[in-house]
Amino acid sequence: MRQVRVLVWGEFVQERTEEAVARVYPRGIHEAIAEHLRKQPDMVVRTATLDEPEHGLSESVLKDTDVLIWWGHVAHDKVSDHVVERVCRRVLEGMGLIVLHSAHYSKPFRRLMGTSCSLKWREAGERERIWVVAPWHPIAEGLPEHFELEHEEMYGEYFDIPPPDELVFISWFEGGEVFRSGCCFYRGRGRIFYFRPGHETYPTYYNPYVRKVIENAVRWAAAPRGPEPRYGMVEPLEKLGKR
Amino acid sequence: MRQVRVLVWGEFVQERTEEAVARVYPRGIHEAIAEHLRKQPDMVVRTATLDEPEHGLSESVLKDTDVLIWWGHVAHDKVSDHVVERVCRRVLEGMGLIVLHSAHYSKPFRRLMGTSCSLKWREAGERERIWVVAPWHPIAEGLPEHFELEHEEMYGEYFDIPPPDELVFISWFEGGEVFRSGCCFYRGRGRIFYFRPGHETYPTYYNPYVRKVIENAVRWAAAPRGPEPRYGMVEPLEKLGKR
Amino acid sequence: MRQVRVLVWGEFVQERTEEAVARVYPRGIHEAIAEHLRKQPDMVVRTATLDEPEHGLSESVLKDTDVLIWWGHVAHDKVSDHVVERVCRRVLEGMGLIVLHSAHYSKPFRRLMGTSCSLKWREAGERERIWVVAPWHPIAEGLPEHFELEHEEMYGEYFDIPPPDELVFISWFEGGEVFRSGCCFYRGRGRIFYFRPGHETYPTYYNPYVRKVIENAVRWAAAPRGPEPRYGMVEPLEKLGKR
Amino acid sequence: MRQVRVLVWGEFVQERTEEAVARVYPRGIHEAIAEHLRKQPDMVVRTATLDEPEHGLSESVLKDTDVLIWWGHVAHDKVSDHVVERVCRRVLEGMGLIVLHSAHYSKPFRRLMGTSCSLKWREAGERERIWVVAPWHPIAEGLPEHFELEHEEMYGEYFDIPPPDELVFISWFEGGEVFRSGCCFYRGRGRIFYFRPGHETYPTYYNPYVRKVIENAVRWAAAPRGPEPRYGMVEPLEKLGKR
Repeated sequence: MRQVRVLVWGEFVQERTEEAVARVYPRGIHEAIAEHLRKQPDMVVRTATLDEPEHGLSESVLKDTDVLIWWGHVAHDKVSDHVVERVCRRVLEGMGLIVLHSAHYSKPFRRLMGTSCSLKWREAGERERIWVVAPWHPIAEGLPEHFELEHEEMYGEYFDIPPPDELVFISWFEGGEVFRSGCCFYRGRGRIFYFRPGHETYPTYYNPYVRKVIENAVRWAAAPRGPEPRYGMVEPLEKLGKR
Repeated sequence: MRQVRVLVWGEFVQERTEEAVARVYPRGIHEAIAEHLRKQPDMVVRTATLDEPEHGLSESVLKDTDVLIWWGHVAHDKVSDHVVERVCRRVLEGMGLIVLHSAHYSKPFRRLMGTSCSLKWREAGERERIWVVAPWHPIAEGLPEHFELEHEEMYGEYFDIPPPDELVFISWFEGGEVFRSGCCFYRGRGRIFYFRPGHETYPTYYNPYVRKVIENAVRWAAAPRGPEPRYGMVEPLEKLGKR
Repeated sequence: MRQVRVLVWGEFVQERTEEAVARVYPRGIHEAIAEHLRKQPDMVVRTATLDEPEHGLSESVLKDTDVLIWWGHVAHDKVSDHVVERVCRRVLEGMGLIVLHSAHYSKPFRRLMGTSCSLKWREAGERERIWVVAPWHPIAEGLPEHFELEHEEMYGEYFDIPPPDELVFISWFEGGEVFRSGCCFYRGRGRIFYFRPGHETYPTYYNPYVRKVIENAVRWAAAPRGPEPRYGMVEPLEKLGKR
Repeated sequence: MRQVRVLVWGEFVQERTEEAVARVYPRGIHEAIAEHLRKQPDMVVRTATLDEPEHGLSESVLKDTDVLIWWGHVAHDKVSDHVVERVCRRVLEGMGLIVLHSAHYSKPFRRLMGTSCSLKWREAGERERIWVVAPWHPIAEGLPEHFELEHEEMYGEYFDIPPPDELVFISWFEGGEVFRSGCCFYRGRGRIFYFRPGHETYPTYYNPYVRKVIENAVRWAAAPRGPEPRYGMVEPLEKLGKR
């Protein structure tokens, strides 16, 4: 069985500076995410964080990555433009990208979307109910019709993204908002999935449904044979000439 | 100015048999809808109902219709298959179709969608908040970010429709549900818009935002020069032969 | 490994009545298609034809089918409406459906699309070049940028289908036409793929690229756990009530 | 009647430095495009070029523009990033953008798409046949099923753009290629249309069909009341709070 090579990238700042966050994610949000994926026999999982050299995202690391998961919040602008460029190029070559929660404002996501990616938000520990609107979708595989998170940060529309190529989830919030919570995008040879839940002060990434969604998304985002950067790009033009 | 020829079709059954409905729509739901459209200088509005010969949808009437609005609920199966066939053909030729509320189960909509069009529902007079998720869309023109209906029937996902070609509105319901409330579909040369609100016991069709949406949808659904059935169908094949 | 249960349905009329067809497909078009799929370790393959009782598409057969492949041409109207209804229902429940070539006019495809599915055509043995326009798509996996069929029937636009949910291939024809040749549709819980090539007088279904596309499409169309008809339909409404 | 304020931006370099181009477009490509639009009673047309201060794209000019048309080729990198940023922001606020031919590589288009926007090309004066695949689309209004350009530069797939939100045209080229030639994208509040034809050495922008497409696209891309940047962005969050 071919194994999917997953890299979980975490900003890993608030977990070390804010007690409310450290209490929930003592080893970092990235580790809470990686923990579940490591149990999957078809996945090989590594992690990387902002403070590593090149943020842990060197050419050689990305070359060995099929799917990159990204969580960031307070330090988006600390991520080097050079590394962002590299990540985006690699996505266009075929690496999968899963963007979580506040990473809607991360540099790679904004650059790949081309829009502001702004949204409404409110921290009030509200109930969130996540509805499946694409039951045929691999990312919804094994889920019930809806599932709930008892306490989450609210994200509300208008979410300034391109119309998703596939819309998998819509969230309902106690305070009166809705949000397109699970959005698929195809860019170049790569597949991108944005998934809303995951505020740093709530134990969202321990929730079994949230974990199942991320696990499904990894399988969906992985190219069958790994990223193949050459497709459609390097075949000599003369080969395509007139017959 | 070219005027859009609108035909508002109402089942007109419950308004004459149920007091709770008659109180809200004494002249029929179709008349409440038509009333607002008649004030638009760029529209010419007629109505038709189930009990008329051919349900008021003869060949000649449809031939003079740019946009058909459809409201039905308890008598879907009373609509003749022959007339349904005619309506669907006319939509494919370019007539616009606006399908309201419980008409998700009408024969023309189901046939044009190809799916069951089933959904969840609950009559509990709940608050509905309708969010714009496509602010660039002509049907959202002039609307605020969201608007509310104090009391409405709940419709919930999964709504078994094809993925909409454009998703304009998402509804939030007090009881915990969301719904894709404004959905555009392109079929043949025709444009179809499904709009959720409109339960017969609530004064929804007097709401200024609901009226504005329907008004916008009429303009969006109207082909610029009226339905042109011949396009792409009758040009002799020999004209397309080898050069 | 879970195996995909494939059923290849062939009209199997011209192969027995027209010599030009029998010469190319002596055992039937369905057998030429099945032959390749039988070599896949992750597939179990059966066939069925028009002349069998219930056209070989009984309730119990469909219940054991993950993906149905459909080829038909001269006998669309011989297929019983009752069986068509059953097939369509099963697709909405989650069975994959692959529709080949002249089956654009088959009853199940037209009913699931809701449009006329008409197109232009010309039998002149023209060269067809099929271009990949979604290199990220599982159905394009392992294919070159384009591949050619030396002789095929021409199909030309306007192809009267709903806008595809995903467009994978576009065909170029020697005589001056283009065609959306590989189209994905999501309907209910089911996945539908229309693939253009396959005229009965050409050896198209022996072409390794055509075979690879059909093989890929089977994997794409198969629901991970097989069709699960209950999803989103039978959960008691009371469970979804107000909290 | 509300008039659409159109700004036609031309690089205007080759028209002054290459005789083969100057012969076809002595006053510049932008003027050939503007000439036709100036005849439309519902449009007010201005032009701007690279060599003007701020490339003729100052804040105040953009503020008074409903739809910007962009043609560029050899000097994409001469366009200031500051101006590009301003143009993109204005598109997200609701200004329409029409991107022509070699401007697939322009900075604003690439930034708004988020992909490389690369494609195949060949200069061989080939015949191009442009097919309508969305006859319901306002941009196809009044066009025949297909139209031809006797000599054009070939553009071929894979065209590395996001899947278009609407695909209006597909081109056929004599040498064996196809191309998604008319692509609509919704970004923020803005509407973007990419249209392929328009090589600088061919009289493409005098062709009546090409002119009709651009004219239609202007009407389609214009927001009904002009760009309204505040929508969805400045409404105070407190207004959206818990009830």
